[in-house]
Amino acid sequence: MPQTMMAVVKAESKPGAEVREVKVPEIGLTDVLVKVSVASVCGTDLHIYNWDPWAQHRIHPPLIPGHEFCGTVAAVGAEVTSVKEGDFVSAEMHVACGKCLQCRTGEAHICQHVSIIGVDENGAFAEYVSIPESNIWKLDSAIPQEYASILDPLGNAVHTVLAGEIAAKSCAITGCGPIGLFAIAVARACGATQVFAIEVNQYRRCVAQQMKADYVLDPATQDVRQMVREATAGTGVDVVLEMAGHPDAIRTGFDILRRGGRMSLLGIPSKPIQLDFADDIIFRGITVQGISGRRMYQTWYQMTALLKAGKLDLHPVITDRIAMRDFSQGMERLNSGQASKVLLYPNGSRY
Amino acid sequence: MPQTMMAVVKAESKPGAEVREVKVPEIGLTDVLVKVSVASVCGTDLHIYNWDPWAQHRIHPPLIPGHEFCGTVAAVGAEVTSVKEGDFVSAEMHVACGKCLQCRTGEAHICQHVSIIGVDENGAFAEYVSIPESNIWKLDSAIPQEYASILDPLGNAVHTVLAGEIAAKSCAITGCGPIGLFAIAVARACGATQVFAIEVNQYRRCVAQQMKADYVLDPATQDVRQMVREATAGTGVDVVLEMAGHPDAIRTGFDILRRGGRMSLLGIPSKPIQLDFADDIIFRGITVQGISGRRMYQTWYQMTALLKAGKLDLHPVITDRIAMRDFSQGMERLNSGQASKVLLYPNGSRY
Amino acid sequence: MPQTMMAVVKAESKPGAEVREVKVPEIGLTDVLVKVSVASVCGTDLHIYNWDPWAQHRIHPPLIPGHEFCGTVAAVGAEVTSVKEGDFVSAEMHVACGKCLQCRTGEAHICQHVSIIGVDENGAFAEYVSIPESNIWKLDSAIPQEYASILDPLGNAVHTVLAGEIAAKSCAITGCGPIGLFAIAVARACGATQVFAIEVNQYRRCVAQQMKADYVLDPATQDVRQMVREATAGTGVDVVLEMAGHPDAIRTGFDILRRGGRMSLLGIPSKPIQLDFADDIIFRGITVQGISGRRMYQTWYQMTALLKAGKLDLHPVITDRIAMRDFSQGMERLNSGQASKVLLYPNGSRY
Amino acid sequence: MPQTMMAVVKAESKPGAEVREVKVPEIGLTDVLVKVSVASVCGTDLHIYNWDPWAQHRIHPPLIPGHEFCGTVAAVGAEVTSVKEGDFVSAEMHVACGKCLQCRTGEAHICQHVSIIGVDENGAFAEYVSIPESNIWKLDSAIPQEYASILDPLGNAVHTVLAGEIAAKSCAITGCGPIGLFAIAVARACGATQVFAIEVNQYRRCVAQQMKADYVLDPATQDVRQMVREATAGTGVDVVLEMAGHPDAIRTGFDILRRGGRMSLLGIPSKPIQLDFADDIIFRGITVQGISGRRMYQTWYQMTALLKAGKLDLHPVITDRIAMRDFSQGMERLNSGQASKVLLYPNGSRY
Repeated sequence: MPQTMMAVVKAESKPGAEVREVKVPEIGLTDVLVKVSVASVCGTDLHIYNWDPWAQHRIHPPLIPGHEFCGTVAAVGAEVTSVKEGDFVSAEMHVACGKCLQCRTGEAHICQHVSIIGVDENGAFAEYVSIPESNIWKLDSAIPQEYASILDPLGNAVHTVLAGEIAAKSCAITGCGPIGLFAIAVARACGATQVFAIEVNQYRRCVAQQMKADYVLDPATQDVRQMVREATAGTGVDVVLEMAGHPDAIRTGFDILRRGGRMSLLGIPSKPIQLDFADDIIFRGITVQGISGRRMYQTWYQMTALLKAGKLDLHPVITDRIAMRDFSQGMERLNSGQASKVLLYPNGSRY
Repeated sequence: MPQTMMAVVKAESKPGAEVREVKVPEIGLTDVLVKVSVASVCGTDLHIYNWDPWAQHRIHPPLIPGHEFCGTVAAVGAEVTSVKEGDFVSAEMHVACGKCLQCRTGEAHICQHVSIIGVDENGAFAEYVSIPESNIWKLDSAIPQEYASILDPLGNAVHTVLAGEIAAKSCAITGCGPIGLFAIAVARACGATQVFAIEVNQYRRCVAQQMKADYVLDPATQDVRQMVREATAGTGVDVVLEMAGHPDAIRTGFDILRRGGRMSLLGIPSKPIQLDFADDIIFRGITVQGISGRRMYQTWYQMTALLKAGKLDLHPVITDRIAMRDFSQGMERLNSGQASKVLLYPNGSRY
Repeated sequence: MPQTMMAVVKAESKPGAEVREVKVPEIGLTDVLVKVSVASVCGTDLHIYNWDPWAQHRIHPPLIPGHEFCGTVAAVGAEVTSVKEGDFVSAEMHVACGKCLQCRTGEAHICQHVSIIGVDENGAFAEYVSIPESNIWKLDSAIPQEYASILDPLGNAVHTVLAGEIAAKSCAITGCGPIGLFAIAVARACGATQVFAIEVNQYRRCVAQQMKADYVLDPATQDVRQMVREATAGTGVDVVLEMAGHPDAIRTGFDILRRGGRMSLLGIPSKPIQLDFADDIIFRGITVQGISGRRMYQTWYQMTALLKAGKLDLHPVITDRIAMRDFSQGMERLNSGQASKVLLYPNGSRY
Repeated sequence: MPQTMMAVVKAESKPGAEVREVKVPEIGLTDVLVKVSVASVCGTDLHIYNWDPWAQHRIHPPLIPGHEFCGTVAAVGAEVTSVKEGDFVSAEMHVACGKCLQCRTGEAHICQHVSIIGVDENGAFAEYVSIPESNIWKLDSAIPQEYASILDPLGNAVHTVLAGEIAAKSCAITGCGPIGLFAIAVARACGATQVFAIEVNQYRRCVAQQMKADYVLDPATQDVRQMVREATAGTGVDVVLEMAGHPDAIRTGFDILRRGGRMSLLGIPSKPIQLDFADDIIFRGITVQGISGRRMYQTWYQMTALLKAGKLDLHPVITDRIAMRDFSQGMERLNSGQASKVLLYPNGSRY
């Protein structure tokens, strides 16, 4: 085992990040040290890189970011029993306290005292990462490495789609970032009979098309409300999966949702939203759900099962594969708005 | 059967209403003519009386208002089979189309083409009212007439309380108009273990006390957030039943709701509300439900069962009993803010 | 409109049936007369034809059987508003009373006073059939006529599969008659990630293969328990859909179901079954559901949506297409055990 | 801390048990040593005492039985953080593995690898008992010690009653052992509007009366089916809570359950039961649930909340309070059929 490793480090409270040599993390009795095979970049990492107001408020440098990855077990603490050296794994990066009401009643994804690896503690943009055994997810070798590195955002999509009935339902996805794009595949695989993808960015609409959404709509140039109404016999869609976090997308979502429909919110608006509770929610008997993280560990079982069964083709979403040392280039690709999922390889020659 | 009857008539597009003689309604083959024993005044009737903007927009005089009542069957159409002359009845006043998706999938309370008796058609502030057989609710004689006349708003409360789990839960009711007050009784009867009643009006807080809320709080003078936090071990309440429709009450409701909690909205805000979707709903995994009307007819079975079992003491909410000819006096009592439920007796000498 | 028509008639209390001329049914004010395009034969029709003990007990000749069909509206009663002459329709043949607790709470499929067209009243093995407007299901022209004629059994499959969670679940179907075969397609379309089809009849296993079950197992020659255990990492399947009604299949179903799993029973055993409540249900926290008919009309919306979206390939199940006048030949085909779904064409030259 | 303690010991594979001096249990890093204040006797303990076939198969002497108790923390392992010396506690005695699918998806009560303290390991019929921190339940001092000692069976009742809707429902409890009796109180507190208690033993019927069941029926002398039918307008009860485990009680339960009703099974039959799946479950759309243990830890939150709110009066069920050294006398009381809950005090002088 080496003493040092290369890692992406957010060293200072300003934009940017650097790749440099740091110590390999130490592990406790119940921790697992994972050698990272592939890591993947989330919008959160971009916020940290760009050092936007959210990041300035939440992040305390120095920090190794990164919370999407897969790898092989390099070492285990003395009390670890569920995995051993060489096992292929990923991990849930929300570390729940295990003792609050939510944790003790099957709702650990909204733990009162959660800590996030890659946000609150050093993460996976490195050659090695330390993870508590409780959060390790052992993977079947049938699951491709590329998919194994994006289970965190795929899990967001699975959690959102399966937070209510989806089979034989019409569904609109507002916002086609990576999670929205994954949601198209998940909704289709789980029996959604009409999938509307609504997105202003042309590049993303193009990927949504490749993900086989039934309708790909541009709210800037098309009358989305009218088109959905016609395609649903005037009723509206059964389910809206809100993944944009933008007021216009949320507005559209409520407008096209049918009476008694489900509005599942995953996208994070940066400021308060105005809503007409009377007409948007109450008279129409709408249910609005806040979706956060992934259910521990029901969502993980679900997405593993879907992937093993070959039910999800996610390739169109993976647009960039680069060496981790070229991290900043990946960030710029994302800032351009012309990339979707960027994979990082710590061992740059492997990909 | 007389040819004419006394009725409250909203005759013109201006404030007020008059009591005058009109023709007894005719009934069709599938209708039931009910002789009204007691009718009850809803906030909606007050809007119509006061001729506020909502009423100006929605109501087309002349109209006999009134949608809360009980009575005895006076005559039935030729095809009516489920009730007969002399039966003691009330009615669901939302007449659903029966043919839309919502109606055909057990969600008739949010029918796409609903018509409301007492709002869209002549209602129950009269000696007789005509009701389609489908909407008649036959009553057990064990249910007191006074309670039978308020099943519509009681049903709103039952629908809201039972729209999710309530047994062994803590619950806050924001707004103690009649429906909020009923909700206290229903929540207690269905196993809520802490009931917080939150209300700015002192008179209403006093009734909430009589309804046996565990905590009756005044948000104008008390630190509601802190008090709820302390009483719930820092967790917040499991359920908020929003019955005020006021931005401050809604704000308080979200603030005191625990992660993963249920926010059931019944109160109708008069204008859009600002909400921080990220912190109020998404990160906390909150579920927000719009509640409208009563489930047809599950809510009716539920409230009948609760009443027959003697589980609900609603007397404190019934504050006024007057002859129907004194309708305007009842309206002024309500406008004073010092009355809760006002009962009207068409046959003034009976009460 | 002709005065007479050809129909299959169960004329006497003995095996067999005859095709003969009868009067075209009259319709009431709220009825719809449908000209049958295609009808389909159910196991129930075979019981009636073979005059087995169930039929002797339940059927009162003379009767026109048949409860699976599609056709075009030939005439409508004066009060019918939702369809008109020429519309393409099928129908729910369970006519619910509309007045019992189950009917009034969204559970009409288990109405206390149901009457079944084709069992209790004259059915669809005829050129014309009369159906109450409430039970007519208007069809999109995008749905193929062959599929439109089998919505009744397809609905049984959809009802069973969607009676609980199925997405990302493993599922075993015990018994591959037509409904079991349909269930394979429905489960796959709705995201089941492992589908085990278990069936003793080789012909049916062959069709199950064509329906793309992941595993097709013969309990007579294979160790089904062991194979399911291995394929599910020792856990057992999440869901069993019991469609055989045979004690051995039910026994197998309980043995392979995981702790906390769902056992949905549709197949009708002909006599009582012995069950070890302690080990089969209680200690393992199993949920057993009785499934009857189709939900009115949620199931109809669901299957229509799945068919319109092209999610279901049902062709392998349709094995015979014959003229209605050759009804008895169709029955013999079914008695041979080498046919699955037999379609009847009243206008013999059309198919 | 003493080195030895008095304990009830099942020393040999034969009927009976002895009270003798044994070593105080040692605790590991994550364990809690509890000084037992009160323990309570379960039917399981009686099986062990009587050495019936189940006990002969399951129990491996020597064993200290006992899995219902409360006490104060006497010592904690070095890694324990959630309780400290002197805290008032009880415990969930099903120790789940934490790593199987059921444990990782919120269903730890049906863990694949559960171990039960007091059955598989030394239990609470002693002055001290060792419990893993994960299973300790810290108690509010508002909860009386007597109630705190019976949370295990009370939890069975709460789990069963709340395994589906109960508010505004009619419900029958078949079998009035302690858990059945508790269920009467819980069902009433959670809004059941008719509670039928059905029990052959006169003594138990008498206690059921004290628990305020609405109807207490003797199936040996009364026509239970007819009486339930009349009291429910011919419909049957919405919910049956089966707590007898006897074939006759189960038969009665199915007979009185309404179409679409819920049958929750907790009582453990000693041998297989015959059931007419067609008429008992399928055609009637019944849901049958196996109930085991208590949900970890939702049930514990629920019962704690109900007790703290004073919603449950359980005193009639607690019939005997004896010194633990008189254990055998308590067993004989239970064998007599004239006692319900027997409490044991390790410190005999305290009660």
